Amino acid sequence: MTNTQLTLVQIDNYGPWTVTPDPRREMDLQTLQSRLFADLAQYVGSRDGYAFFTRFDNMVAVTNGLDRDDHELLQESIANRYPVTLSLGIGVDRSPAVALERATDRIQRVGSAQDGDRREVLSGETLADADRTGTDLQIAHFDVNDATGKYTDRLNEFDTFIHIEQGYASLMRHLREEHGALSFFVGGDNIISVTPDLTEDQYRDAIDHVEAEADVELKVGVGTASNAHEAGFAAKHALEDCRHRGTTVEYADAAVETADD
Amino acid sequence: MTNTQLTLVQIDNYGPWTVTPDPRREMDLQTLQSRLFADLAQYVGSRDGYAFFTRFDNMVAVTNGLDRDDHELLQESIANRYPVTLSLGIGVDRSPAVALERATDRIQRVGSAQDGDRREVLSGETLADADRTGTDLQIAHFDVNDATGKYTDRLNEFDTFIHIEQGYASLMRHLREEHGALSFFVGGDNIISVTPDLTEDQYRDAIDHVEAEADVELKVGVGTASNAHEAGFAAKHALEDCRHRGTTVEYADAAVETADD
Amino acid sequence: MTNTQLTLVQIDNYGPWTVTPDPRREMDLQTLQSRLFADLAQYVGSRDGYAFFTRFDNMVAVTNGLDRDDHELLQESIANRYPVTLSLGIGVDRSPAVALERATDRIQRVGSAQDGDRREVLSGETLADADRTGTDLQIAHFDVNDATGKYTDRLNEFDTFIHIEQGYASLMRHLREEHGALSFFVGGDNIISVTPDLTEDQYRDAIDHVEAEADVELKVGVGTASNAHEAGFAAKHALEDCRHRGTTVEYADAAVETADD
Amino acid sequence: MTNTQLTLVQIDNYGPWTVTPDPRREMDLQTLQSRLFADLAQYVGSRDGYAFFTRFDNMVAVTNGLDRDDHELLQESIANRYPVTLSLGIGVDRSPAVALERATDRIQRVGSAQDGDRREVLSGETLADADRTGTDLQIAHFDVNDATGKYTDRLNEFDTFIHIEQGYASLMRHLREEHGALSFFVGGDNIISVTPDLTEDQYRDAIDHVEAEADVELKVGVGTASNAHEAGFAAKHALEDCRHRGTTVEYADAAVETADD
Repeated sequence: MTNTQLTLVQIDNYGPWTVTPDPRREMDLQTLQSRLFADLAQYVGSRDGYAFFTRFDNMVAVTNGLDRDDHELLQESIANRYPVTLSLGIGVDRSPAVALERATDRIQRVGSAQDGDRREVLSGETLADADRTGTDLQIAHFDVNDATGKYTDRLNEFDTFIHIEQGYASLMRHLREEHGALSFFVGGDNIISVTPDLTEDQYRDAIDHVEAEADVELKVGVGTASNAHEAGFAAKHALEDCRHRGTTVEYADAAVETADD
Repeated sequence: MTNTQLTLVQIDNYGPWTVTPDPRREMDLQTLQSRLFADLAQYVGSRDGYAFFTRFDNMVAVTNGLDRDDHELLQESIANRYPVTLSLGIGVDRSPAVALERATDRIQRVGSAQDGDRREVLSGETLADADRTGTDLQIAHFDVNDATGKYTDRLNEFDTFIHIEQGYASLMRHLREEHGALSFFVGGDNIISVTPDLTEDQYRDAIDHVEAEADVELKVGVGTASNAHEAGFAAKHALEDCRHRGTTVEYADAAVETADD
Repeated sequence: MTNTQLTLVQIDNYGPWTVTPDPRREMDLQTLQSRLFADLAQYVGSRDGYAFFTRFDNMVAVTNGLDRDDHELLQESIANRYPVTLSLGIGVDRSPAVALERATDRIQRVGSAQDGDRREVLSGETLADADRTGTDLQIAHFDVNDATGKYTDRLNEFDTFIHIEQGYASLMRHLREEHGALSFFVGGDNIISVTPDLTEDQYRDAIDHVEAEADVELKVGVGTASNAHEAGFAAKHALEDCRHRGTTVEYADAAVETADD
Repeated sequence: MTNTQLTLVQIDNYGPWTVTPDPRREMDLQTLQSRLFADLAQYVGSRDGYAFFTRFDNMVAVTNGLDRDDHELLQESIANRYPVTLSLGIGVDRSPAVALERATDRIQRVGSAQDGDRREVLSGETLADADRTGTDLQIAHFDVNDATGKYTDRLNEFDTFIHIEQGYASLMRHLREEHGALSFFVGGDNIISVTPDLTEDQYRDAIDHVEAEADVELKVGVGTASNAHEAGFAAKHALEDCRHRGTTVEYADAAVETADD
């Protein structure tokens, strides 16, 4: 049974900072946002977690394996090297959506994202080592069937992009509403979802839904582990199985999960 | 009248590279993608252009002001510092969508994005200095009304994110289909569009469309200049005018454009 | 008694790579070298270690607290994100110079730094957790007395730089020859040394030696701990004590060490 | 005849910032310093200039080809993305040392490096385009003969490092005192010098001096151009000629300069 630890990473007072005393060069903001995300990805990734850029001023990380000290060090390091600071809210639940709700609430209860005084909140419980198991995380890695042949090599880039965005928007809503799963576009034609325990039929339903709603064909590899890196890596390998076998849904351990969310 | 120069920036053979000889750690891919985009943003931005991360393996840059040598240097510098190389296609047209079509075609005609042999394409004409004018680019900077109050401080981060994604998906389709404008989510609750000459009514229509389709309220600042930085900066300032005056559409020069696309 | 674990970080085949097929833009090499060092500093630093840029193609890290898996992950992450790879040799000894000798030998025995075939050596024993103690590392943080007043605000930058370089060259030789300590310039007017157990008299002698030989006046803060971050942080605080008290040598715990190297 | 434009890049109030309110993690400072230098190297390098890390809080750039607006943009971009700001002083002279003196004086006259109020000085004249010539810069690229065979593959890394440091210290002093040339270690076994017009005999004398004083054997390639990149690139190629021909001094254009400094 899944037990997802998520951390909401929110830049303090970012909106006002970007226009005070005057608006800042857009490319400098893009650079700052991207490099801050890259640092978060390296920090969390080197502890076997995952980080998603989401909205850049608000980012979501899967932090099973990171304790409170790890979160504190992240805050300290960013404060030492950037002109902005981070607030971190942590939440744990078998449902990723509920975990993120808890994480978000931890920060919201202290103050607004644009509160001139609220800085470097660090709140929420992390999963104790003794409570961690090999089924805490289920990660699904989706990609678009033959994206290069159908889109990238044929349409202009924006129309390819629109197709992939529509596919993403459809999948993200379906998985959130049906299962409390959270889906993130990670570049190219790839989407990574953090899910509760979902069955092969539930993945097939999601894929059918996206094909019907957005006319985009997906396939998916699914992995399970105690941390995001191992679960996600297993999911990537399972996705390669889809590619080689011509299948649509593959689990890292090839077992069909029973419906239980 | 607009005359948009766009460059499609495509990483050569990226899909295969990410899984050869085996899949690579996801957080390393996220880091590489983000830092490569940040470098593109700095390079293009320091020449008064704009760059958008789009799909990360395919990125779109507004390059009025950058010539062929500038594009060559970008390729050389990335090849010296990353384990991947870039192909660059350049296109110019009064319609941003057509410009991107030309840019994309320049790369596609040479070979597939996953062609093991195609490397470092550099193709397409840049706008000659003598042909540049102060109305070459129209940039519109949208943001969501009171995103912090309505979403960020109240909903969990993913539901806030879903709202903003739906708003983005709706705007991007509408502006592309109606006007050949290209829209890019740039973080927070901000979307930047590269447009042909659009009127105040046309922006109002777009905003009404998004509110009806996605239940997301936008406002917009519009700027015009010979390069992306100046047009975009003027648009940011116009957006501040919206914020202060409580209006929905503001042009940097307050003139109402006549319909002419 | 000290027990220093050092890792030699050597870029594989770097000399030939920088000129094959032709010499590369110098500023791209400087950028790659600096960012690779920055990533090493973040990776090791987040595990409470220290890293010094040294020659950039060869860097020295104090890795008490990092095990073999940590070293492997570092190699993998760099290989995923840079156009070069790293070889890592690890050595442990109460004398930092001997530890580095062991670390260097680990790589040298496998092949030359410019061996076209030698890639990603990972060799050497790390200190087992059970064997670690609170006196494993002694770190000394030196800075130049009133560098700003005497040099930075008065001389042209290169003459200031020459003075500081001469001071560094003198200290580095003295500490290496007398005590097997390794000293690294870390920017500004700061030098950090990794030492065996040295006494207050031994630090005074080193400072007197540098003043006589290079006419540069130093002061020093000394810290001891099981890892580089804690020892170095204590040394920084002790250096602040020197600044406030007007003293020349301060230990984090104010105890005078007995001569025993 | 040379006409060197140098810019001193000084971080404002850095010393105090690193310890206020308390000392900061050393690895975060190393990361910030290295990445700021990398950004400077990219910015200046993409305009065909050179940048040297020097002391990291004070860096030297060869900026022939960069005008006042270029310097202003650099300051603005760093201020938008880092927790520190830069002061820039510019100086021009046929003697690099005098040029740097002028650049340094420009900042010093406004205020101390540790002045709590002095921020973002931008002062000094840049070389007008009309006054630039193909002989404005002479760049010499030195490296150590067979560093890999003699040192890297045989000694422990620190002793190799000491040899190279001694060679650098000797060369830097000699060239500064004899000719007003400025020399910078750039990694590996490489030193780049910015010189006035020096003859082959003057380079041989410098190399003999270093061999006698530090027992380190150097060879050098020399290039001349209107900007640092072209002069330095020509010097690199000339150094490859030394490597292939077994010679000690090679000019990019093989002409022996007459003594005239």
